[in-house]
Amino acid sequence: MTPDDALKAPITEVAAAIRAGRLSSADLVARCIENIEARDGALKAFVHIAGDALDQARRCDDAARSGASTGPLHGIPIAIKDNYLTADMPTTAGTAAQIAFPLEDGAAVARLRAAGAILIGKTRMHEFAWGMETPPTTNPYDETRVPGGSSGGSGAAVTAGFCLAATGSDTGGSIRIPASLCGNVGFKPTFGRIGRSGIVPHSWSLDHAGPLARNVADAALLVDIMSGHDPKDAGSAEAGPTDLSAALTQDAKGLRVGVCRNHFFEALDPQVERAVENTIALLGRLGATVVEFEVRELQYGLGAIFAIELSSSTAYHLPHLSAGRVDAYAPDVRLLVEMGRLVTGSDYLQAERYRTLLGRRFREVFANVDVVVGPTMPITAWRIGQKEVVLGGKTEAVLETSWRFTYPWNLLGLPAITVPCGFDDGGLPIGFQIAGAAFDEASVVRTASLVERHTAS
Amino acid sequence: MTPDDALKAPITEVAAAIRAGRLSSADLVARCIENIEARDGALKAFVHIAGDALDQARRCDDAARSGASTGPLHGIPIAIKDNYLTADMPTTAGTAAQIAFPLEDGAAVARLRAAGAILIGKTRMHEFAWGMETPPTTNPYDETRVPGGSSGGSGAAVTAGFCLAATGSDTGGSIRIPASLCGNVGFKPTFGRIGRSGIVPHSWSLDHAGPLARNVADAALLVDIMSGHDPKDAGSAEAGPTDLSAALTQDAKGLRVGVCRNHFFEALDPQVERAVENTIALLGRLGATVVEFEVRELQYGLGAIFAIELSSSTAYHLPHLSAGRVDAYAPDVRLLVEMGRLVTGSDYLQAERYRTLLGRRFREVFANVDVVVGPTMPITAWRIGQKEVVLGGKTEAVLETSWRFTYPWNLLGLPAITVPCGFDDGGLPIGFQIAGAAFDEASVVRTASLVERHTAS
Repeated sequence: MTPDDALKAPITEVAAAIRAGRLSSADLVARCIENIEARDGALKAFVHIAGDALDQARRCDDAARSGASTGPLHGIPIAIKDNYLTADMPTTAGTAAQIAFPLEDGAAVARLRAAGAILIGKTRMHEFAWGMETPPTTNPYDETRVPGGSSGGSGAAVTAGFCLAATGSDTGGSIRIPASLCGNVGFKPTFGRIGRSGIVPHSWSLDHAGPLARNVADAALLVDIMSGHDPKDAGSAEAGPTDLSAALTQDAKGLRVGVCRNHFFEALDPQVERAVENTIALLGRLGATVVEFEVRELQYGLGAIFAIELSSSTAYHLPHLSAGRVDAYAPDVRLLVEMGRLVTGSDYLQAERYRTLLGRRFREVFANVDVVVGPTMPITAWRIGQKEVVLGGKTEAVLETSWRFTYPWNLLGLPAITVPCGFDDGGLPIGFQIAGAAFDEASVVRTASLVERHTAS
Repeated sequence: MTPDDALKAPITEVAAAIRAGRLSSADLVARCIENIEARDGALKAFVHIAGDALDQARRCDDAARSGASTGPLHGIPIAIKDNYLTADMPTTAGTAAQIAFPLEDGAAVARLRAAGAILIGKTRMHEFAWGMETPPTTNPYDETRVPGGSSGGSGAAVTAGFCLAATGSDTGGSIRIPASLCGNVGFKPTFGRIGRSGIVPHSWSLDHAGPLARNVADAALLVDIMSGHDPKDAGSAEAGPTDLSAALTQDAKGLRVGVCRNHFFEALDPQVERAVENTIALLGRLGATVVEFEVRELQYGLGAIFAIELSSSTAYHLPHLSAGRVDAYAPDVRLLVEMGRLVTGSDYLQAERYRTLLGRRFREVFANVDVVVGPTMPITAWRIGQKEVVLGGKTEAVLETSWRFTYPWNLLGLPAITVPCGFDDGGLPIGFQIAGAAFDEASVVRTASLVERHTAS
C-alpha cells in the first residue's frame, strides 16, 4: 500500500498494512507532513505539529517488524483539536489570552494513544469553541470560504490529507458543521459516551467529543476507541465502549427513517434540499420505511440552547473575566462570554425545563423510528467575511443559519452524524444528518453507511 | 379506645380500633374539631377546615361496621399543608395574591385518600414555602413563640391534637424546622421518593414532600403510603413505595452512627448541644459505633442553596412577577422572589457544580456510616418578632440560624428525620436530626426509633 493509497483507504486496512509491513507508518506520516508543508500555509489547519511524529511512526514500524501491534490505530496519524489537552503538545483552545493549560492527556487522548495512534498535531479551532468559522483556517474545497467551526482545523486537515482522522468537540454543531462544509463524516455520539476529562469545557451539559473522518467506518472506529466511562467527567455515562463495526454492513430492511418536516426543512438552500430529498428517497428505495412527522416544540429551541450555552460558558470563564484576561479574547467571543452574565438563573432553569419537555417529545418520536434524518446545515460553505445569507426570501445571519439543524441534538444529547450526500453547483459538499435515540449509535452508523455506500462521491 | 387515647396512640393501633369498632372515627374527628375550636383561635394552624370531615368519618365507621377496610389510614384525620392541591378544599399556598390554584388532588393526596385518611383541613404555611416562621401561627408549647416554618401550621396542628398527622414540604428544612420547634417527628425522605405532582413548587431540585407526626412509626407509615413513582413529577424516582415497618424495631447492634463535627456543631445553644450529645452517647451505649469526621466543603453550602433556591423560586414566579401579582406578596417573600432575578445563570451553574462535589464527598461518608446525626436546629423556638440570636458570642439573624443544619440534606437530596430528644430549661422541645444515604430511609427510621424508645419524653 502506498502512502497515497493509505490516504484514501479505511483506517482498519491501513493499520493492517502497517502491522503486516506492507506500508511504513513513517512513510505515511512523512506524506502527511509533505501535504501540510505544501498546503497548510493556505489552509492554516494546524496550530502545532508534533516534532516527534516521524520518530513515533518509526517506533510503530519497529514494533510491526517485531510482530507487536500497538492497537487498532497502529501507526495511524490522527490530528487533535486544540481544546484537547495533550501531555506532549501545548494547548491554547484557540485563545491568545495568557492561560496556562496543563500538559497532560485526558481520557480520549489517552485512549487514542493506547490504541496506537500517532498524534500528528493540534488543529485550529474557533476560540474556546465559540463560533462557526475558525479564522484564519480556510476550506480545502475553496480557500475563499470558511471551513466551518468550531472544529474547522480538524475538518480542513482531514479533507486535505494532513492526517487520517481528527478529533472534534460539538456543543451546538462544532463537529458536524465543519465536517459538513469540508465534506467529512463528523460524528457526535450520545452525551456521556466519550469522556471529556482533559477537554477545555465550553458548556458542560451540551459538550460532546467525537471524530471527524474520511468515511463512516473510520468515524465509527474512532468512537469505539474513544468511548467508555470516564470517572473524571461528571457527565460520563456508566457504559462500556461502543462496538459499531457490525452496523457498517447492515442493509436497510426494517429500518425506520424519520423525517421531521418542520424546523429541519425550513429556510434552506434549494440545492441542499434537493440533495437531501434524493438521499431520503434513496433510503426508501433501499427498503427503509420513511416516516414523516412534526415536532412543533422545536420552535423554542434557540432561546433555550443560547441561555444554557451562555450561562455555562460564562461560568467557566468567570475567573478569566475577573482577572481581566478576556481583554485578549477575540471581539466576537468576548462579547458572548460577557453577555452570558446577563442570563439569569431563572432563565437558565426555564431553558432546562424546556429541554426536559423536548426530550420527552423526542422519546416518543424514537419509539416509532430508528433515526431522524435531514440536512446537516441549510447552506454550504460561505465566503470568508460573509455575514448574511438569503434563504426563502429572508435575510439571516450566517452564524444563526449555520447551527439551526445541529443544535437540537446537543440540547437532547442524542447521537448525530453528518455524512456527505452530494455537492452544490459550485462543487461544495453537502451534509446529510442522521440522529438516533440515546445510546443507539448503531442505527445512526447503519444509516450513514447505507448513504455512503449508495451515494456517488 | 377513647378519642383522647387515640390522640396519643400510634396510627396503626387507632386505625385497627376503628376497623374493629372499638373506636368511632366520627368521635375521633369530633374530638379533633373540639380541640381546633378550643385552641386554633390562638394557634391559627388551619386556614381551612373540611366541612364534610364528620361525614367522611361517619362513612368510615359505616364501612367498618360492614367489615370493609378503606386502608391503613382507615378513618384517621390527617391535615394537609396548604401547598398541596386538593380536589375538595381550596389551596392558597399561603399567599394573599389572586392566584387560582386548581381544585384537584396530586399524587401524595390521592395516596392518602386511597389509604382511607380523612383530610380534616389545610394548614397554614409561610407564603409559598419561603420562610421559617409561618405568621400568624403560634407554637403550642409557648404561644409567644414561632412554630417554625414553612410547614408551621402542620407542626402546631399535630402537637395540639388537631389531627393525628400532617403533611409538609421541605426545601431547606420546612418539615424538620417546625417539627423540631413543635416537638414532632418530621421526615423528609430521599429526593424523588414522594411524588410532588399537585404540590405548588418552591424550588424543583430541592423540594421534598413528607409527613409531620407524633411518633416515628406514624412518620414511617405515612412515607410508606405517600411514596412511590409519580409520572407527573419530573423529579420522581423510578422506585416503588417504601416499607419501613421492620426498621422500627431493630436494635443498635452494627449500626454505624456518623457525627460530622464541623458545620453541624458550630454556634449552637448549649442546652441543644447537651441534649444532642446525650443522645449520641445513648446510641453508643445501645451498641452503635459512633464515627466522628469532618466535611470541610460544607462551609460553601449556604451560597449554593441560596443561588439554587432563589433562581428556582423566581423561575416559578416569573408569570406572577410580570403580571404584577407579587404586589400582594408579604414583603419578606416579595423581596426574595424579586432578588432571585439577580442570580445569574453562571452563579446557578457554579452552585450546581458545588452540589455535585458535596454529593461525591457524602457518598464517601456514607460508605463508612449508616446515618449522620446531630442537632436539627441550633436553637429552640424563638419569640415572635425576634430577629436575632446570640450564639457562641456572635449575633446572627434567626432566619439564617434556623436552617443551618437542615439545608445540607436538601442540597444533597438525602433522607433526614427530626425526632425529639429533650427539652430546654424553658420546656421547649429540642430536635435530633438523622440523615441517611440516598434511598436508605430504613437506617434513618431505625435510628430515630432507637432514640424515641430510649429518650424519656
